[in-house]
Amino acid sequence: MNFTMIIKNLGILLMVEAACMLPSLLVAIINNQYDIMAFIVTMMILIVVGLLMYCIPARNKNFYTRDGFAIVSLGWILVSLFGALPFYLSGAIPSYVDALFETVSGFTTTGSTILREIESLPRGLLFWRSFTNWIGGMGVLVMMLAVLPAAGANTFHILKAESPGPDPGKLVPRIGQSAKILYRMYISLSLVQVVMLLIAGMPLYDALINTFSTAGTGGFSNMNTSIGAYNNVYYEIIIGLFMFLFGINFTLYFQALKGDIKNIIRDEEFRFYIFTVVGAIVLITCNLLGPVFGTIWESLRYSFFQVCSIITTTGFSTTNFDVWPAFSKTILIVLMFIGASAGSTGGGIKCLRFLLLFKTIKREVRRIIHPKAVYTVKYGGKTVNGDVLFGVMNYFFVIIIVFAVSLLLVSLDGFDLVSNFTAVAATINNIGPGLGIVGPMGNFADYSDLSKIVFSFAMLFGRLEIYPMLILFAPTFWKRVNI
Amino acid sequence: MNFTMIIKNLGILLMVEAACMLPSLLVAIINNQYDIMAFIVTMMILIVVGLLMYCIPARNKNFYTRDGFAIVSLGWILVSLFGALPFYLSGAIPSYVDALFETVSGFTTTGSTILREIESLPRGLLFWRSFTNWIGGMGVLVMMLAVLPAAGANTFHILKAESPGPDPGKLVPRIGQSAKILYRMYISLSLVQVVMLLIAGMPLYDALINTFSTAGTGGFSNMNTSIGAYNNVYYEIIIGLFMFLFGINFTLYFQALKGDIKNIIRDEEFRFYIFTVVGAIVLITCNLLGPVFGTIWESLRYSFFQVCSIITTTGFSTTNFDVWPAFSKTILIVLMFIGASAGSTGGGIKCLRFLLLFKTIKREVRRIIHPKAVYTVKYGGKTVNGDVLFGVMNYFFVIIIVFAVSLLLVSLDGFDLVSNFTAVAATINNIGPGLGIVGPMGNFADYSDLSKIVFSFAMLFGRLEIYPMLILFAPTFWKRVNI
Repeated sequence: MNFTMIIKNLGILLMVEAACMLPSLLVAIINNQYDIMAFIVTMMILIVVGLLMYCIPARNKNFYTRDGFAIVSLGWILVSLFGALPFYLSGAIPSYVDALFETVSGFTTTGSTILREIESLPRGLLFWRSFTNWIGGMGVLVMMLAVLPAAGANTFHILKAESPGPDPGKLVPRIGQSAKILYRMYISLSLVQVVMLLIAGMPLYDALINTFSTAGTGGFSNMNTSIGAYNNVYYEIIIGLFMFLFGINFTLYFQALKGDIKNIIRDEEFRFYIFTVVGAIVLITCNLLGPVFGTIWESLRYSFFQVCSIITTTGFSTTNFDVWPAFSKTILIVLMFIGASAGSTGGGIKCLRFLLLFKTIKREVRRIIHPKAVYTVKYGGKTVNGDVLFGVMNYFFVIIIVFAVSLLLVSLDGFDLVSNFTAVAATINNIGPGLGIVGPMGNFADYSDLSKIVFSFAMLFGRLEIYPMLILFAPTFWKRVNI
Repeated sequence: MNFTMIIKNLGILLMVEAACMLPSLLVAIINNQYDIMAFIVTMMILIVVGLLMYCIPARNKNFYTRDGFAIVSLGWILVSLFGALPFYLSGAIPSYVDALFETVSGFTTTGSTILREIESLPRGLLFWRSFTNWIGGMGVLVMMLAVLPAAGANTFHILKAESPGPDPGKLVPRIGQSAKILYRMYISLSLVQVVMLLIAGMPLYDALINTFSTAGTGGFSNMNTSIGAYNNVYYEIIIGLFMFLFGINFTLYFQALKGDIKNIIRDEEFRFYIFTVVGAIVLITCNLLGPVFGTIWESLRYSFFQVCSIITTTGFSTTNFDVWPAFSKTILIVLMFIGASAGSTGGGIKCLRFLLLFKTIKREVRRIIHPKAVYTVKYGGKTVNGDVLFGVMNYFFVIIIVFAVSLLLVSLDGFDLVSNFTAVAATINNIGPGLGIVGPMGNFADYSDLSKIVFSFAMLFGRLEIYPMLILFAPTFWKRVNI
């Protein structure tokens, strides 16, 4: 481990976080509420600690995959620990564990909350809360890479550890350049959404907050009853559509910008994603028609929004889906695990992984029937390397294990099984709300501090896709230190 | 596909099933109840159909893995379809789907029931019901192989498709011999249990029935409230102990008979199994002490029995664990998926698979930390082949997919999520009872016929470890027919 280089990078990251708080401070000053000082103090702490860490002299500049993983996992933990300070110092969230939960939930784009009452928070803090969704969506470190002028080739290890999906897309040969392009597309798409919401009549502040939470597929809203509070079908269509769009692999947008439209339609993951979304909407619409809603349009309206919200792991809600029939709820639970496309801002296990796993099953069955024939798994016309398939399967298994361990720890609080199960599913897949006490009308406040820390780890495990977090628990990781 | 050879073998299987009904017919005659004719008619049908199928001339005697898989999957389905007849023809179970569910549940050693009232059934039928547990435990076709005098080398494919666990143990070079040795050990261990139960004071009929269900890790009891009906601590200790023993890999008993005791203690899966059982008992005992039971002994008594019952996937109960605290229930759900040892009569995913998967994670983490070093997964001192690891992971994924699809279909009935979830978990892992309406005091009667068929498939998928069932759904399997 090259600890000095790791600390140096983490120092830069903290200073970047200070810069990220500026817009929120501005909002706080404009509204002149009690959160101004909390932001100023936090930013000063960030700059001082960041500078001290950055000034550590690094002798060895070599950088390996493990160092990239360490920067990512430790970086996310640090950013969350400091990012929780405005909530805590202002007194808006009196418990530090609660503030930390809320911040981890923000950066990991989960959107689960411990707040029983959201609307009474000062506007600066609510802005920061949703802004963490926006930063976390593209990646805390991708942002750093995009901002830094001299991002070397070594930083590929960071991007590899942070980006969602089994195969991090290098858009252009230089990583720093890739990060910049990604952020440019991210900002453009966000801007379009803000403008559309403004045109539909949403106030600027609300439009910004909801766009941050949509773009990052986080789902933090400034309303107690989420998007349902507006009861506005135009807002729902715009936000639902953009949730869907942010769940698409960004590489496809890049190709579209270069005029390569055919590739998008031919993309297997994109097809799988569309097929799943449309299938789920149709099934839930039929299931809700009658017992829950009177007309097919009403049924379609809520089904469309909720499916887009859950599969992209955003977690917004327009109605209390906890009272929907068992079939619809089970579909939503399945969608929680499928998740969005690889290379999007969404969480979950990702469509691409499921696609590869299904292809692997198909191959195994063929192998049994014709043992002498040679079958390979192909994706996009190319043969998929055995190591990639192995990694995908392994990932699936580890997610289930982390899920089971979290579920066991959380069940110590004694709440019902459905709440516990969906609470863990909603945090590990970075969705937000679950069912039961953590349903769209509930929150995570009643869980114990231990459970909140378990949930925070689950969110980080999910967002960083296991391995960067897992190596922190490996004894060998800490043993072999080369300074 | 060599269909003629497949049909020939299935014919033999049906005749063997007729022979297996003899003891039940005997019990029916002794008790002179209304089920006598049902057994006689069924046996006649079995012999006639079996003979007709056997007499088909086979030109080609070549036998491949796919044929072995087909014999196993079709064999289990046929045996269940005919095995359900005594229940249906006697009128004891008026619906054929219900009778089929009960029989599949018996042969797959699941032990789930649609009967609201068990004790009123004629004793011959109850005997047959538990006897299916006993036959299914070791394997319907392993029995055929053990009975047949001239089991050729080709039959390895059958054993491979039917035996539980990733690596079917060949005890001795000749398969027919292996099957005979397995059955001899199975019968001996069962006999010891019967004798011990008799000594403890249980009537012969009950001792036989409970031994059948213990040995096969099936869990069909002749009492409405399962083993709890006796409220006898000696019975519970004996049955609990034997459930544990039948959950151990039978290869270890074979080695023990050859005097190789050291190997047992060194066996990694055996250690994992013991560790899991003891750990779960300790945690649940602590969790139950206070809220549920007053003394540590009472707490230990019920915890010991239930853990042994669930991890071995037997499914007996001595108390209504549905009212236990969430932590204990969550542990039981996790145990449902872990299951017993490979090469035992128990179901679930199997300890060996989990062990290999954990070792794979460990290797992946090490690979990230030291990318240049070469790490292999070792089991029992030997390097595990990459294909085996791949198969284990794939298996894990397919189980979860079959689980999700079953859950979706079953949720159409509109029951609560916990009942649905644990009902699918209990059937796919061949356990028996779940929680909620399918809890130890409930049954599967209220589910629709569609759900009962889904559950039946889930039981077969679980018992036959996916692939023999999965190839039935592959179009290529049906296309290329070579007669």
